[in-house]
Amino acid sequence: MRIEIVTIGNEVLSGRTFDTNFVYLARALEEASVVVGWHTTVGDNAELIGETLKLALSRADAVVMMGGLGPTPDDMTRKAVATALNRPLQLEESVLAHIRERGRRAGRKLPSSVETMALVPRGSEVWQNPVGAAPGILIDYRKKPVILLPGPPPEFEALAERHVVPWLRERSGTHVDSFTLRTFGLFESQLHERIGTLPDTWHGAALAYLPSWFGVDLRVTVTGANAALVRGTAERAYNELGERVQGVIYAEGTQTMEEAVRELLLERKWRIATAESCTGGLLAKRLTDLPGSSKCLERGYVTYSNASKQELLGVTSEDLAAHGAVSAAVAEHMARAARERAGVEVGVSITGIAGPDGGSEKKPVGTVFLAVSSPLGEAVRVHRFMGSRSTVRERAAQTALDMVRRHLAELPVDPTLY
Amino acid sequence: MRIEIVTIGNEVLSGRTFDTNFVYLARALEEASVVVGWHTTVGDNAELIGETLKLALSRADAVVMMGGLGPTPDDMTRKAVATALNRPLQLEESVLAHIRERGRRAGRKLPSSVETMALVPRGSEVWQNPVGAAPGILIDYRKKPVILLPGPPPEFEALAERHVVPWLRERSGTHVDSFTLRTFGLFESQLHERIGTLPDTWHGAALAYLPSWFGVDLRVTVTGANAALVRGTAERAYNELGERVQGVIYAEGTQTMEEAVRELLLERKWRIATAESCTGGLLAKRLTDLPGSSKCLERGYVTYSNASKQELLGVTSEDLAAHGAVSAAVAEHMARAARERAGVEVGVSITGIAGPDGGSEKKPVGTVFLAVSSPLGEAVRVHRFMGSRSTVRERAAQTALDMVRRHLAELPVDPTLY
Repeated sequence: MRIEIVTIGNEVLSGRTFDTNFVYLARALEEASVVVGWHTTVGDNAELIGETLKLALSRADAVVMMGGLGPTPDDMTRKAVATALNRPLQLEESVLAHIRERGRRAGRKLPSSVETMALVPRGSEVWQNPVGAAPGILIDYRKKPVILLPGPPPEFEALAERHVVPWLRERSGTHVDSFTLRTFGLFESQLHERIGTLPDTWHGAALAYLPSWFGVDLRVTVTGANAALVRGTAERAYNELGERVQGVIYAEGTQTMEEAVRELLLERKWRIATAESCTGGLLAKRLTDLPGSSKCLERGYVTYSNASKQELLGVTSEDLAAHGAVSAAVAEHMARAARERAGVEVGVSITGIAGPDGGSEKKPVGTVFLAVSSPLGEAVRVHRFMGSRSTVRERAAQTALDMVRRHLAELPVDPTLY
Repeated sequence: MRIEIVTIGNEVLSGRTFDTNFVYLARALEEASVVVGWHTTVGDNAELIGETLKLALSRADAVVMMGGLGPTPDDMTRKAVATALNRPLQLEESVLAHIRERGRRAGRKLPSSVETMALVPRGSEVWQNPVGAAPGILIDYRKKPVILLPGPPPEFEALAERHVVPWLRERSGTHVDSFTLRTFGLFESQLHERIGTLPDTWHGAALAYLPSWFGVDLRVTVTGANAALVRGTAERAYNELGERVQGVIYAEGTQTMEEAVRELLLERKWRIATAESCTGGLLAKRLTDLPGSSKCLERGYVTYSNASKQELLGVTSEDLAAHGAVSAAVAEHMARAARERAGVEVGVSITGIAGPDGGSEKKPVGTVFLAVSSPLGEAVRVHRFMGSRSTVRERAAQTALDMVRRHLAELPVDPTLY
């Protein structure tokens, strides 16, 4: 079964409102092994709503439409669907009673317009709305279910969770299993060289490469009619893919790099101090994004000026003169001094040229030196990041975190060496 | 002209990835008076991509497809479009040269798979990608434009802003003028009380309240067929709206709070130093988001532990014992010490409880003290921010920046007092 989800609403189509209902339903349906084939958004326009429904019925096995079931004139889903399917609207007494009961309990007189919400296409089944007035509506149209849901997220979610997802799951006959391996340090194309055509050997599986500032996530989704086979393929894919890229996996699922670093710090009962120049506090900010960060980050030095590098971290004017503030020598010194002066086990530093100005022939914009220092030893690396100032800074912070992670895990700090 | 936007990608269709590209494009097109009629999302499936494009061409005047232009096998937009339109893929030399040049500058050898990104449907025009490899592709198919854009948001946004939006706006035939006043310090409802029904007097204009962590942006868009009338209405709206809310406007258009602060610092030729506890470096990071920040930020102290507050800023154990680290006394001391120890004119500090743990009856989660110190004087405020850890931290940083801004502009630091 492959379904189509249709969102109705000008505010979504204009980008002003995020379509959180779609995200909610798509995730819930994936977990319920219901395959979504299409998602279409149209505005509050009866003709377009009707056309969209007919198109969806021509290609999908079931249609879920959300939005446009309220009492105001811009809500036209009810009428558009009745016309498109040739199922005239009829008053549904149980809904009217439900609406009146809600009004009575809230102690307020309802305007008569709310009664339009009790109109449903002929032959519909209704799901009463536990947190609002407009019901969920289920229409069996030539053996294809058409489901209408109200747009306000609490009402939508309540009806989706109690009725729509279980109802569709029961009828799906498909099973889904998926996992995500998060990698850092290799480009998409380099990962592809290592992985090659391996996914072709997994029956019913798809591999997606999802690149971002934070690395490349590898997401595998397996679908099929037999739950045990799907599970088995997913396990095999997990093992085989993991083997090909194990050296660069920093986390699984939705775990972040800072969580991976924190786990390694907590295991050793170590704390960390940061020394940053071009990232200007971003690295310390990342390390304190997590609740309870005081167990991990002791302090951070944002030594943006040369004077502050000297005063706070004891960088020498000789090193600054001989190598410049953006150099391996200064990065190493910063990491070591941060560690020693904070009295903690790990120091990490970043010094570089985030741009857009300040580059030179030898050290172009994007040149960043990173260092780590701990009882396990010291390491320094240089990178040349491409992109805007913000990209250079984000990538530098993520690279520094990965360097700490690899250092604490006693892996080679260069991820391409594995 | 009514266009269709098509998003391609399993990760979007499954609800795992938020379709920020769509939101970005839809908002930009609305400002450019280009009407979006449909938004369709399909997975990484060549057949469905082709069918979706044909359908879109049958109902829309132009089609923008985004995603699936990368170098890996799950990227199949290029091929699907070539097949659907019967425009075989051809090597575009200028793109290949662009990709090789990027590789050369980054100093790395590119795998041959990246060259697939230089393949474009016959008769395409290309827009080089300023921040990545895959170009934007413009195909004129029987007088209807089909535009293909890469999915990674920085690349997508760069191409959309530079090429796609201006290109479509030129062809739309409507005039638009718009402006944004960015406010901070009042809630949406408080602004609405001040503004009332004023927008009803502006012909063809719409006022949107856009609340976020960074305050409430007031965006006015005027549309019409006559350019001079549109311009005149926009000017009148700008003056009248500005008068109602002038005390809380920190910037216009896309200018940020940190830019506003920087302007004021540069005017006085002053520099700033930060002292942060719960924001963990976020404030310093914000102040260094801008190029050339070394003229403004001298250094930042991320004093997360009590020990670091004492060692780096001289906070006394008496103050810590008597008032706690989250207190007006400690905030004031931090701001003054940051300023004095860095040898600069302005110090700003944040100390608070970002949560989710660590709150108490007297100082619940979200309690944050902020202070500023300069030759103009000193000020300290306490706020109680609602929301998640991340919301509390973002709002605290923005509030600190606004406090510095108001202080330097010699406005009352409390924005409700105007």
